[in-house]
Amino acid sequence: MSASGFATTPKPPYYAVIFTSLRTTAEPEAYARMAERMVELAQQQPGFLGVESARGSDGLGITVSYWETEAAIAAWKAHWEHREAQALGHERWYGHFEMRVARVERGYGMGER
Amino acid sequence: MSASGFATTPKPPYYAVIFTSLRTTAEPEAYARMAERMVELAQQQPGFLGVESARGSDGLGITVSYWETEAAIAAWKAHWEHREAQALGHERWYGHFEMRVARVERGYGMGER
Repeated sequence: MSASGFATTPKPPYYAVIFTSLRTTAEPEAYARMAERMVELAQQQPGFLGVESARGSDGLGITVSYWETEAAIAAWKAHWEHREAQALGHERWYGHFEMRVARVERGYGMGER
Repeated sequence: MSASGFATTPKPPYYAVIFTSLRTTAEPEAYARMAERMVELAQQQPGFLGVESARGSDGLGITVSYWETEAAIAAWKAHWEHREAQALGHERWYGHFEMRVARVERGYGMGER
């Protein structure tokens, strides 16, 4: 993740995990710590390319992580520490979420059109 | 878009446009009006499936719109009113943005794992 919050990704194709979630009001500090730890841990995984994340004051958030392959996504999903975070997310932190895995076909940035 | 901010999408495959942007501080009211109008207009386009959007207090936002086909995305990109909005985005409203078009391969919601 660049300093400004944008992921620096390679030429497509690569993969995106689009995670849309609604936070409960439970445990804001614990949640923030875990979210930060998950980004740190994801960055250490094979095939990780970058992550972008935003959450509004209404509690709705979108995190998109980018990966080289679907196998890298599966391995990250199965990581024991990530699984603990997923369980806590289910039980306490999210009122609802939707997860989508997508193959990025093309992309451009401002000034590249 | 459902009341809670989640898009109701069909069984994959379908397409996602991931638009990550950093807002300038310019014209917050005009921007908010245009953003609302673009959602309203997008919903009227053929092949539109839904949209999810979040922007944090740091100005970084992610909007993901979902579409039946790549042709629907191309038609929406070329819509004259949308092109006006894109031009204003370039000139005034965004410090930077990244746009990615992706094919959603699989998805699940909370409780469906």
